[in-house]
Amino acid sequence: MTETQELPAGSHESIDPDNVKIGYIGGGSRLWVRNLIRELALDDSLSGEVVLYDIDYKSAQRNEEFGNWVHDQEEANGEWTYRAVESRKKALEDADYVILSTQYPPTEAMKYDLEIPQEYGIYQAVAITSGPGGIMRAMRTIPVYRDIAAAIREHCPDAWVFNYTNPVTYLTRTLYEEYPDINALGLCHEVFHAQDLLAKIVADQFDVPKPDRDEIEVNVKGVNHFTWVDEAYWNGQELLPAVEQYIEDNVREYTREELEDTTHSMHPGFQDNNQVTYELFKRFGVLPAAGDRHLVEFATWFLQGEMPESLNRWGVLRTPSSYRLDRWDDEADTIQQFIEGDKEFELSETGEVITELMGALAGISDFQTHVNLPNQGQMLNVPEDAVVETNAVVTQNNVRPIVSGSLPRPVHTQISQQIHNHETIIEAAFNRYDVDYAFQGFLNDPQVKNLQTETARDLFAEMCEGLKPLLNEWRLEDSETLAESEKFELE
Amino acid sequence: MTETQELPAGSHESIDPDNVKIGYIGGGSRLWVRNLIRELALDDSLSGEVVLYDIDYKSAQRNEEFGNWVHDQEEANGEWTYRAVESRKKALEDADYVILSTQYPPTEAMKYDLEIPQEYGIYQAVAITSGPGGIMRAMRTIPVYRDIAAAIREHCPDAWVFNYTNPVTYLTRTLYEEYPDINALGLCHEVFHAQDLLAKIVADQFDVPKPDRDEIEVNVKGVNHFTWVDEAYWNGQELLPAVEQYIEDNVREYTREELEDTTHSMHPGFQDNNQVTYELFKRFGVLPAAGDRHLVEFATWFLQGEMPESLNRWGVLRTPSSYRLDRWDDEADTIQQFIEGDKEFELSETGEVITELMGALAGISDFQTHVNLPNQGQMLNVPEDAVVETNAVVTQNNVRPIVSGSLPRPVHTQISQQIHNHETIIEAAFNRYDVDYAFQGFLNDPQVKNLQTETARDLFAEMCEGLKPLLNEWRLEDSETLAESEKFELE
Amino acid sequence: MTETQELPAGSHESIDPDNVKIGYIGGGSRLWVRNLIRELALDDSLSGEVVLYDIDYKSAQRNEEFGNWVHDQEEANGEWTYRAVESRKKALEDADYVILSTQYPPTEAMKYDLEIPQEYGIYQAVAITSGPGGIMRAMRTIPVYRDIAAAIREHCPDAWVFNYTNPVTYLTRTLYEEYPDINALGLCHEVFHAQDLLAKIVADQFDVPKPDRDEIEVNVKGVNHFTWVDEAYWNGQELLPAVEQYIEDNVREYTREELEDTTHSMHPGFQDNNQVTYELFKRFGVLPAAGDRHLVEFATWFLQGEMPESLNRWGVLRTPSSYRLDRWDDEADTIQQFIEGDKEFELSETGEVITELMGALAGISDFQTHVNLPNQGQMLNVPEDAVVETNAVVTQNNVRPIVSGSLPRPVHTQISQQIHNHETIIEAAFNRYDVDYAFQGFLNDPQVKNLQTETARDLFAEMCEGLKPLLNEWRLEDSETLAESEKFELE
Amino acid sequence: MTETQELPAGSHESIDPDNVKIGYIGGGSRLWVRNLIRELALDDSLSGEVVLYDIDYKSAQRNEEFGNWVHDQEEANGEWTYRAVESRKKALEDADYVILSTQYPPTEAMKYDLEIPQEYGIYQAVAITSGPGGIMRAMRTIPVYRDIAAAIREHCPDAWVFNYTNPVTYLTRTLYEEYPDINALGLCHEVFHAQDLLAKIVADQFDVPKPDRDEIEVNVKGVNHFTWVDEAYWNGQELLPAVEQYIEDNVREYTREELEDTTHSMHPGFQDNNQVTYELFKRFGVLPAAGDRHLVEFATWFLQGEMPESLNRWGVLRTPSSYRLDRWDDEADTIQQFIEGDKEFELSETGEVITELMGALAGISDFQTHVNLPNQGQMLNVPEDAVVETNAVVTQNNVRPIVSGSLPRPVHTQISQQIHNHETIIEAAFNRYDVDYAFQGFLNDPQVKNLQTETARDLFAEMCEGLKPLLNEWRLEDSETLAESEKFELE
Repeated sequence: MTETQELPAGSHESIDPDNVKIGYIGGGSRLWVRNLIRELALDDSLSGEVVLYDIDYKSAQRNEEFGNWVHDQEEANGEWTYRAVESRKKALEDADYVILSTQYPPTEAMKYDLEIPQEYGIYQAVAITSGPGGIMRAMRTIPVYRDIAAAIREHCPDAWVFNYTNPVTYLTRTLYEEYPDINALGLCHEVFHAQDLLAKIVADQFDVPKPDRDEIEVNVKGVNHFTWVDEAYWNGQELLPAVEQYIEDNVREYTREELEDTTHSMHPGFQDNNQVTYELFKRFGVLPAAGDRHLVEFATWFLQGEMPESLNRWGVLRTPSSYRLDRWDDEADTIQQFIEGDKEFELSETGEVITELMGALAGISDFQTHVNLPNQGQMLNVPEDAVVETNAVVTQNNVRPIVSGSLPRPVHTQISQQIHNHETIIEAAFNRYDVDYAFQGFLNDPQVKNLQTETARDLFAEMCEGLKPLLNEWRLEDSETLAESEKFELE
Repeated sequence: MTETQELPAGSHESIDPDNVKIGYIGGGSRLWVRNLIRELALDDSLSGEVVLYDIDYKSAQRNEEFGNWVHDQEEANGEWTYRAVESRKKALEDADYVILSTQYPPTEAMKYDLEIPQEYGIYQAVAITSGPGGIMRAMRTIPVYRDIAAAIREHCPDAWVFNYTNPVTYLTRTLYEEYPDINALGLCHEVFHAQDLLAKIVADQFDVPKPDRDEIEVNVKGVNHFTWVDEAYWNGQELLPAVEQYIEDNVREYTREELEDTTHSMHPGFQDNNQVTYELFKRFGVLPAAGDRHLVEFATWFLQGEMPESLNRWGVLRTPSSYRLDRWDDEADTIQQFIEGDKEFELSETGEVITELMGALAGISDFQTHVNLPNQGQMLNVPEDAVVETNAVVTQNNVRPIVSGSLPRPVHTQISQQIHNHETIIEAAFNRYDVDYAFQGFLNDPQVKNLQTETARDLFAEMCEGLKPLLNEWRLEDSETLAESEKFELE
Repeated sequence: MTETQELPAGSHESIDPDNVKIGYIGGGSRLWVRNLIRELALDDSLSGEVVLYDIDYKSAQRNEEFGNWVHDQEEANGEWTYRAVESRKKALEDADYVILSTQYPPTEAMKYDLEIPQEYGIYQAVAITSGPGGIMRAMRTIPVYRDIAAAIREHCPDAWVFNYTNPVTYLTRTLYEEYPDINALGLCHEVFHAQDLLAKIVADQFDVPKPDRDEIEVNVKGVNHFTWVDEAYWNGQELLPAVEQYIEDNVREYTREELEDTTHSMHPGFQDNNQVTYELFKRFGVLPAAGDRHLVEFATWFLQGEMPESLNRWGVLRTPSSYRLDRWDDEADTIQQFIEGDKEFELSETGEVITELMGALAGISDFQTHVNLPNQGQMLNVPEDAVVETNAVVTQNNVRPIVSGSLPRPVHTQISQQIHNHETIIEAAFNRYDVDYAFQGFLNDPQVKNLQTETARDLFAEMCEGLKPLLNEWRLEDSETLAESEKFELE
Repeated sequence: MTETQELPAGSHESIDPDNVKIGYIGGGSRLWVRNLIRELALDDSLSGEVVLYDIDYKSAQRNEEFGNWVHDQEEANGEWTYRAVESRKKALEDADYVILSTQYPPTEAMKYDLEIPQEYGIYQAVAITSGPGGIMRAMRTIPVYRDIAAAIREHCPDAWVFNYTNPVTYLTRTLYEEYPDINALGLCHEVFHAQDLLAKIVADQFDVPKPDRDEIEVNVKGVNHFTWVDEAYWNGQELLPAVEQYIEDNVREYTREELEDTTHSMHPGFQDNNQVTYELFKRFGVLPAAGDRHLVEFATWFLQGEMPESLNRWGVLRTPSSYRLDRWDDEADTIQQFIEGDKEFELSETGEVITELMGALAGISDFQTHVNLPNQGQMLNVPEDAVVETNAVVTQNNVRPIVSGSLPRPVHTQISQQIHNHETIIEAAFNRYDVDYAFQGFLNDPQVKNLQTETARDLFAEMCEGLKPLLNEWRLEDSETLAESEKFELE
């Protein structure tokens, strides 16, 4: 008798591929908007307007300038206009697609996410999905996304909404809980990583040129950043036995020095050495489909022992918060350099599938990819409405998950624990932002289970204290948990 | 802790499209083998051998002759050889695909199925899926299919098995219950009928040329011959509102005379006038996706009142058993006429998708269609392992159902009742062929609910008596139900 | 994330057995109030006040007079005062217990319930639980019970509410749907009937004096008036084998004449001959636990064929609506005769367990009985929140159902169908009284399945027309179903 | 279609209370047999014979002597004979009740359970339910209990089986998995502890004499040693608010010295200071119902930090394995001293409910207590067949769990994780003792999650090496996990 969350099925009106409106929330973002600009310029099937909204209007303007500049380049396809606006409503009204890619706030918060837990002996690798940092990020972003969901219901109820913001599971779940008829997809490229790895393994084991990642078919299931592959095919051939072979020759240990010497376009920490992936496959017989630095935050065995040595030994180097802050500013400059010709611009693929998705929804051609959606049967033994990541078929105005079956029980229980924690935080938020109940979810996070309860309480309190201005909606003052701790100051 | 039925995932070996072996059980069949011959001749992507096995070897030989003759025609594609064999093992060994299309036995049984119930006031329209005739057909065919499943496990455990034999749900369920790792699909073309109807409605309502049925996207779910569409799109446009409009102008009543005057290639009873479909849509708001003559055997309101008038009034004319018997012989002649040039042969499409399916499984190109498979999440609120009909994605060596969601409760309850009856008969069969338990399922069939319990018992007993030689495996002599009735003679 | 229906757990305050307040809604009722008066007078553990509210104030006053008169009799225990009030609020305020036993309206409606369906060939036996009459009764009473639930929430949120009004399942479900924290029990004495029958069988089969019904332990499960026993013990001995023996000697046919000659305190139709019970036990191996006249309205095989002969043959004689109307007036007189000494009053037991229930809840002594409650695990494979009838343990301020397990599939499917129909009507009512959706449930009732869809529509329309003044809350004017039919007059 | 585990429903024959046969497996045990002897001597409703079987025949003989001696004492009720036998069959044949209370083997194994994990930094408090020691104990005992279940099926299929052996959940689950129709109950007295605590709180908070523990009604649910109370009543009054009050005044920290000074009849470690209970109640709002030393092995926050200080601080002192070994021998002497009059024997109550249970099953009087049984609805959102601990009603030849509802999600997820681990180990055992799969369960134990995967592997290997002679049934030689580790020696 309750309003359950429907699978997204679009509106009754079809989208005109020649006249698309994309509303971009977080339109000042450095990474995602620029990926979008590139992908749209490479695609020849869609045209229209991208309306960029950001609380930081200047950043949005910079992206407007860059987007229009790119589309003036000779090699750019389609007809696209970029426009920065100062009101969210303007971005959303009549949008066919809405892209959500925000960081709230973009700077200090991340510092707290990583550094306070570390003082308590919790060494997180990324801190954007789970663990103390991931949960705090969820807590401060859920109110924002409830508000966004309400605005979408008002201004463009039938729009297709693509959420790229982390933690993807929490936020996609929030969108549906607030507005059950929303057509939202949680998107993430981590699964592509597994396909790439499998392609490499095909090349190595079958002595053929490395196939394209799209040629690797995988059956994926799990929660975002903790998704697993239990069937993989290339050319109709089952790949998991080949993985087993491959791993035997490729298991090794790493040192910190070696990791820091790695060259990576963003930061050495983004280099994925797959040792965690290999170890989890060896233990559980199914292949994780996310980067190692994400996996360790769920499969917390890798965060045990002397840190950071015990983690580095698996080839994982944490991205420090300082990197993110620095990078932030660098990115701002790069655009100017492109436009002024100081740096050569190359229109290269980004690996994202956003144009294929938009094209499929506009009726151009069907497409299959992995998405994060409320469970309606795509994963067995998972509560309805919990957000899970599986494959889906995207057709005109429609997205339908593909049945993925169940996972081996020992993997299922790890995922199930995460899902209960997601639901606990969501319940806390939708139960008038109940802080004490949220703390119960915090306590159950496998990273936090390494602490004594009172230590965990102090960690929670200290993070709430540090992030207080971002937790306005939460009833901090009513919390018995916070009142107990010296780390939190009641006002 | 029990062996659940896995989704079909093929073998670890891929199929060579140039060297396919198809084993055909029921290879003497008139209709399906000849459709296969035509479809293979029209397809240019596969080649190989079709090995025809039938308990009626002569019929298989006739089809061998016809198949080879067709492939000698100029317009035929691919390289195909047809070969009739006298041992089932020869047909199955090393088969890549197995086609099941049998009738057991082809003649008298159908007479009993229709005529005995009619003496008891039950006027069935087809009697091959449900109702007294459908259940009896299931009871006598389940043992045969258990045996076939065991033979497949022995001779070609990884083969893809296509079951076209009715009752499709009962028999596909039997294959999986006997051999849980089988790669079997229950196939039926009734849903195409709904797509055709929708295409006609598109033409009528939007004043455009009738689109191809493949352009109509439908979300289907239910059990075979009682499948429903709750979303339909053409060109991204929702079609159910158009259906509502269309029906208003097209609802009418029929007379028996009118129906008998209809021209249809097979029999006037095969002409579908869709009035039952319209009425069910009006009542329940979702569109049935099977021919009217099948629907009335589930939605039994249409079988109430004076018969056959009350049924004819909805445009449904029952196919008499005599037709089937006669047609049987006619078909035999037709082939000879083709071969001897007395009748012109035209290589026309049959509307089946068998070559697309085989091609997709061999890796030629992905394909999406509706299939009957054990439930693994594709339908909500349905027990795992019950066989349901939904869409699926077919890729190389893999078939995965697409999540279809739930049906409106008033439709769900009708389907749920059928599923419980399927499971009851299957349980009876796998519990050492317990006749009394099967009778409990029989009593719960909505057609049988029109009888007093003792009358139903006599009907059941009289059918068991008539079909005794075909019910060898069932413990008729141990049945208290049969012992009570004068209509059954204990030996 | 939705408010699910909690098991009843009372308030935090305990009830003072010496100072109880009972609020009685329907306090002018002839049968139930007088049973209560007798039971309270026989019980020596409770004292207090009974506040009688009825829309027919005079009837309530008559019961006030009778209740006080009885408690003045020498043999009466406890200290009880009866008081009729003209406002519902006065009856409910601060009540410890609320008794619901209403008929709305008490007269003409029942005539429609039975007689209109009969014109359409549906011969109902009772028409208060299911079938066209039962559904109509539900439809007109649900709004009243939503209102009562709201009043209880306002005036006595922690009171224990006993609902005796039919249809018990629909109305208990309504109370919980409207006010999920209500402490309500649906009560009915039909299961006692099964215990009595078993006691008789014990006497007959084991050649002992007939045991008390309380000595017969039964595991019951199902929905009210269609509850089944799958385990029964007397003195630790399994009774179902004895039932099988007993039935063999006691199966017989009845004639109408014989039935009409039966003497019964109320009407010959209340005499239960158990032949339907026996037949269902023979067919399904578990024992129905309700009177035959109720069973046939669920197990509709018994309503097939020539009526009323085919029903009478099973020993069931329908209670005509005329009986109810007549009896109504007789009852009014009886009281006066008692009080004036024209008729001898005897303080006899009524067979109800209301004082045991109230006593247990007040902490006097634990008690076990069968109750109707939202499913929280007491029945397997039944949706949560659907109201089912099973055993429960009643302790101070607490009622907890006992796990009853699952029923054999062929029985489960009959119950499951009823539950879906209950839920459909409830959904229709709580979805702003959607008439067309309610009609979908009506169509699925197994009694209605005997009609053509359009005939069923006319029956529904004619009943809605006849009962229009009682269906105020329902959006009759918006209904497409009603608009289609000539039997309903739009205003 | 699978054989599910039935609720226990006894045989068709009732038990004669004057002529009971109890078969005792583990009849040489020091603690439980002697408790039984006392309880039988105190009870006046049952008489019969206790047949003691033990692989250590001498110990059984000693108990025989003691039992007979006690029943010769003046104050002993009933007529009981004790008899030690050398064949298990003799103990089981025709038994009405079977008691299982074994330790296999009684000595060294426990040492490994505690001490090897400690070398790896895992400081277990008890090591008999969960954690590395609990899992190893399960692994070596499951084969023994499969064998016992098979023997019960053969020799006394209808007997009531009481399992007191730890880990209770694993072993009760094993009995049902091996012999689904067994009438077995897993029994444990830890919940009584919660009732005692609540009685103490009642006395303290309401200023009344401490009530008897039986006067405290609790709704319990969870898994053995990790059971929770979400409703508690005394005299109809909700107690959880009083608990909250009480805790405020009673929370404190402990030192090791203080703990070691405690006097306890067995060992200071058995003294329960409830600080863990209080802390868990504060965090999660529901009350744990097991001793603190058990709770910390599930709620592993308390095992974090410097050990044993961080644990001692909560008032928990671990029982060393040396204690158990020593105590073993002491107990042997005590009996002799009683018999020879060197020590005064007092026939005191033990707090167990074994005679109430046996009496209720024999029909003497109904009884309600908490038991461990396969889930059939008594706990929501828990898989069927998983063994859970809830209240149940015990009547003649029948035990039926009472519906307990669901737990708050943050508690549910902790229990759910344990249940998955139980099921994993059971699956491993019943899948031909698959060691690698068992290791996956081991890895998921929350105590083990503190280790790096390879460290966990070595711990597992070292324990398997140490306990090799007790793990005969497990396919150690086939294990890839063990082969990888230097700690295990392949033969």
